[in-house]
Amino acid sequence: MGSDEILRTHLQELRRGTVVVASLIALREPDYGYALLQRLTGHGFPVDANTLYPLLRRLEDQGLLTSEWNTQESRPRKFYRTSDQGESVLGTLLDDLAAVQTSMTGLIEGVDR
Amino acid sequence: MGSDEILRTHLQELRRGTVVVASLIALREPDYGYALLQRLTGHGFPVDANTLYPLLRRLEDQGLLTSEWNTQESRPRKFYRTSDQGESVLGTLLDDLAAVQTSMTGLIEGVDR
Repeated sequence: MGSDEILRTHLQELRRGTVVVASLIALREPDYGYALLQRLTGHGFPVDANTLYPLLRRLEDQGLLTSEWNTQESRPRKFYRTSDQGESVLGTLLDDLAAVQTSMTGLIEGVDR
Repeated sequence: MGSDEILRTHLQELRRGTVVVASLIALREPDYGYALLQRLTGHGFPVDANTLYPLLRRLEDQGLLTSEWNTQESRPRKFYRTSDQGESVLGTLLDDLAAVQTSMTGLIEGVDR
């Protein structure tokens, strides 16, 4: 494994869980998959459709998103929205991210180089 | 999958990559596995030995840690230390974490509830 690939793997691992958090935040405003993908990418969470669409279905199965079909447009689209349960999970995840940030700062300051 | 398990899975996913970052920071001060585990736990990165020890070996294989045996104690112990390459990868990961934080804030502020 070359050093570029090592770095890429660690970056992916670091990013993996954050797409869930970003999606739950973004879907406080209901949206369909492709528009969400564009919003996330625009906010610095690049994600591809092959990752995002199964993730949305998984979050719906888990009850963290609800969905409904918008049939007013020429082509019906499935809109997702963060559920109350999703909002509750999101709150815990954001608290945990803040805790990680605090722990990281503590660790950096606690280590003499 | 119950809601506790759903939450635990998402928390684990969010935390997974951060243990690498925490280890690379902590091992700016050389340490052996068990002492590192205690330091990480004390700083809010609980991790078990079955996760941490293979991770240390993987990071050493990748050249991000170096190791040497301390044979001055009654029981020889393998001490790990963040390498120059590890320091370079760590810098990129910390930049990425900061970027995630900024993106997350932008997303939260950009979404009308």
